[in-house]
Amino acid sequence: MTEKKSGWVVKVSVAPPSLNDNTADADRIINELKSVLKTDYIDIDLSLLKNLPWLLRESAYQVRCVCFKDRGRWKLVGVKSINDSAICAGIAVDLGTTRVVLRLINLETGEAISESAFDNPQITIGPDILERIHFAGNEMGLDKINRLIVAGLDENISRLCRNAEVNLSDIYLMAVSGNTSMAHLFLGLPPNHIIREPYIPVVNTLNTVLAKDLGIRINNNARIFIFPNVGSYFGGDLISGIVFSGLHQQDDISILVDVGTNAEVVLGNRDWLVSCAGAAGPALEGGVSKIGMNAKPGVIDRIIIDPETGSFDLHTIEDLPPKGICGSGMIDMMAQLFLSGMVDIRGKFVESKCGNRLKDSDGIRRIELVPADKSATGKELSISQVDIDSLVRSKAAMYTILETIVRYVGITFGDLSTFYIAGTFGSFINPRSAITIGMIPDLPEGSYQSLGNSSLGGATMVLTSRQALDEVEKIRDRITYLELNVNQEFMNRFSAAKFLPHTTPSLFPSVTIPR
Amino acid sequence: MTEKKSGWVVKVSVAPPSLNDNTADADRIINELKSVLKTDYIDIDLSLLKNLPWLLRESAYQVRCVCFKDRGRWKLVGVKSINDSAICAGIAVDLGTTRVVLRLINLETGEAISESAFDNPQITIGPDILERIHFAGNEMGLDKINRLIVAGLDENISRLCRNAEVNLSDIYLMAVSGNTSMAHLFLGLPPNHIIREPYIPVVNTLNTVLAKDLGIRINNNARIFIFPNVGSYFGGDLISGIVFSGLHQQDDISILVDVGTNAEVVLGNRDWLVSCAGAAGPALEGGVSKIGMNAKPGVIDRIIIDPETGSFDLHTIEDLPPKGICGSGMIDMMAQLFLSGMVDIRGKFVESKCGNRLKDSDGIRRIELVPADKSATGKELSISQVDIDSLVRSKAAMYTILETIVRYVGITFGDLSTFYIAGTFGSFINPRSAITIGMIPDLPEGSYQSLGNSSLGGATMVLTSRQALDEVEKIRDRITYLELNVNQEFMNRFSAAKFLPHTTPSLFPSVTIPR
Repeated sequence: MTEKKSGWVVKVSVAPPSLNDNTADADRIINELKSVLKTDYIDIDLSLLKNLPWLLRESAYQVRCVCFKDRGRWKLVGVKSINDSAICAGIAVDLGTTRVVLRLINLETGEAISESAFDNPQITIGPDILERIHFAGNEMGLDKINRLIVAGLDENISRLCRNAEVNLSDIYLMAVSGNTSMAHLFLGLPPNHIIREPYIPVVNTLNTVLAKDLGIRINNNARIFIFPNVGSYFGGDLISGIVFSGLHQQDDISILVDVGTNAEVVLGNRDWLVSCAGAAGPALEGGVSKIGMNAKPGVIDRIIIDPETGSFDLHTIEDLPPKGICGSGMIDMMAQLFLSGMVDIRGKFVESKCGNRLKDSDGIRRIELVPADKSATGKELSISQVDIDSLVRSKAAMYTILETIVRYVGITFGDLSTFYIAGTFGSFINPRSAITIGMIPDLPEGSYQSLGNSSLGGATMVLTSRQALDEVEKIRDRITYLELNVNQEFMNRFSAAKFLPHTTPSLFPSVTIPR
Repeated sequence: MTEKKSGWVVKVSVAPPSLNDNTADADRIINELKSVLKTDYIDIDLSLLKNLPWLLRESAYQVRCVCFKDRGRWKLVGVKSINDSAICAGIAVDLGTTRVVLRLINLETGEAISESAFDNPQITIGPDILERIHFAGNEMGLDKINRLIVAGLDENISRLCRNAEVNLSDIYLMAVSGNTSMAHLFLGLPPNHIIREPYIPVVNTLNTVLAKDLGIRINNNARIFIFPNVGSYFGGDLISGIVFSGLHQQDDISILVDVGTNAEVVLGNRDWLVSCAGAAGPALEGGVSKIGMNAKPGVIDRIIIDPETGSFDLHTIEDLPPKGICGSGMIDMMAQLFLSGMVDIRGKFVESKCGNRLKDSDGIRRIELVPADKSATGKELSISQVDIDSLVRSKAAMYTILETIVRYVGITFGDLSTFYIAGTFGSFINPRSAITIGMIPDLPEGSYQSLGNSSLGGATMVLTSRQALDEVEKIRDRITYLELNVNQEFMNRFSAAKFLPHTTPSLFPSVTIPR
């Protein structure tokens, strides 16, 4: 009599051995699990066997088994007495280049117990992934950068569990979602060929890895699932995002976009999936402007410009004195500058409209957002023509990528049922502003859906649902990756998109172009 | 273009990556192997990935892959450049309680390169497996006895490879065949419940184990295959023996017997397999008599007694002065004593026939084989009535076990096509003598076939043939284990078998009973 569930913990109750049934202890449990899980094989590690005879006898052969599927093959990861009051837990990890988010999960109920986040300690090597990859180009560098993230994870998992009063030895599973480079650095795999043509990862689809082999001190037999990648520029975090969005299960066609330095795009439905990735430019992340920064307290995230008076209504996170501007703030600002006529359709400052906010130094014009005496830094916060040009190129690149993939499959933007925006950035972005500048297509606003941290969301799903894990591999194998060729056609589209919102305004009927 | 073979080394040649095919390095190799090996999954360990990118580029994506099947699932164990002149090797191990035999194998050609043997270092704990199991009853004892065998293997593998000029890092696979207790002690698994009713091993069928996890220093990623067992008293060495004999593939019914302290018996053909095991007594191994010892130089292994003159013609191994008698020597002696009339059908000394060879001390009679002045020890070598009684009980037990299993499946000895005798002991035994004393049935002498070290033979096969490995698991699952109940019927048979050759002489028509 064994309980059936859709998660990874299976309660097993078998008859104790007798002279009539002298099946070995391990095989007795495995045979029962095989019949419950409907499978021919369940793997078991030697380390799990050493204590098994005592555990089974103490619990009268009534146990909870943590099982996991390692690329289609079941594996017994842990065994606990049915009387043991401790839970079986897992950790979902969003392994971001900048920020790492952990979520502690009760594997038996599927509940999230607690969450925490920390800055990726590899930032000390370089904030940019490229710098880190160069640093990891030799064995010593790779080892150092690998240790940084492993130690960071180990320490923060330990703190998270302590605070939640969960034993580290009760953590049996971990699901890690990150981009291809981050996954390589976490695994200690040489990332050298990721950034060199033809851009080859060491591995796309990996088996689970023993946590202890990576230096993560949770249960001695705990397994880490790492999301597979499609290529160097389409990582496991995107696969995780697809699972989380459910795009791959719908009849209608949807698109999922992860906006960042790289724009990663998936288009499809239950029948097909096409993906591509391209450089959108760091401007969209607020990474180009001198005052650009990640979203945090005191950062400008929303702007309204009164077209009549030209006055700026700035909103900062937590309403603190402004110290910078984040990516979504940049997009908002750009849209407002355009709608107020302060920049023209080419994205150039219009002197007559900007008034005395327009400044000039060394021939580069800038518009003042916050004067020095009102900023948190004591310095003027302003955006230059260079920043704006960069943002225009970035938004044009993004739109061109979207246009290219949509045309590639022979549909139009109008055929899209939902436009998912992934990542934390996606939670802040104002679709109306993004449409206004022509960064994303002019769909009904209800079509846009922010997924929040879809990378963490997908990792959580894999730890709580067998079906979700099965889907990951299927999605990985189903995706057709479209290599973006920057050919003449692409360049023509890009040039046409370098206007606000576009050279062909009829593509953006909802945007009223100021005269 | 990849070469197909039936062994574990596959030559792979794939196109290098390009912008049109950016499959990751590992997946590139795995995909090719999947198509060659006709399988959906091939597992790969993280440790193998770290060096893979350089290896593939240096060898222009032309490599030799060592693959192995871990319970039906393929695993990539090693990758070597096609230009590397070193071989891919494996080690077959007969893990005997007394003696351990190693055979170094070229995995690419299937050839045996070299062989060596050493005494099981656990003998220092106790020559008998029971003593060792008791010693291993606590963690410290288990750890100590485990280290003894691991260190012994490690040291002897190292020496074997050095002598054969094979690098330890070129050993990718090991196949270990031993009885259930030896396998447990080798793996560091608690043997406690093996010897206590209802006699339960920790595990019957195991996944492969990383050699380094056990402390065997060969290739870092090398895998050890351990033969599955059927139960506490039917071990992997017997499964190995079955594979080696080929009994499981024949139309005709055959029997395989491993003679020792325990008699392990398999009966069957391509359609069915029945096995049983029972205590035959140490007498058959020469382990009871004061002068009994394992076969080695100076040990009596053959005897002829002239029925007319009563003179003894003793043969010793390597013709050295006699110092003891081995199991097969005991059987030979018993047969000759019986045929010469020196013992009667009850196995009792016949004074009139023994003459002055018959001695007596403390009321126990003995027959002198070698006088003190002619022995290597300077002491008289003799066999007592107690020794003979013990041997008679042992041979009776053996015959009864054989009779029981044959009757169980509803056949007679006459239905047996081949009678395989496994083990080194089997190589020395004289079937004629064993028939004469009624230890084995009276079949035509051509029916008897000695397998030699079938345990090592089966381990060798597993390292050289994919089919042999597949068969191991099938055999394991096909065997019906017959629990020998020592009931009244068994005891009646046993009593009838305690005569030479039997209470019913017509069962042994070829034996002329002396008057």
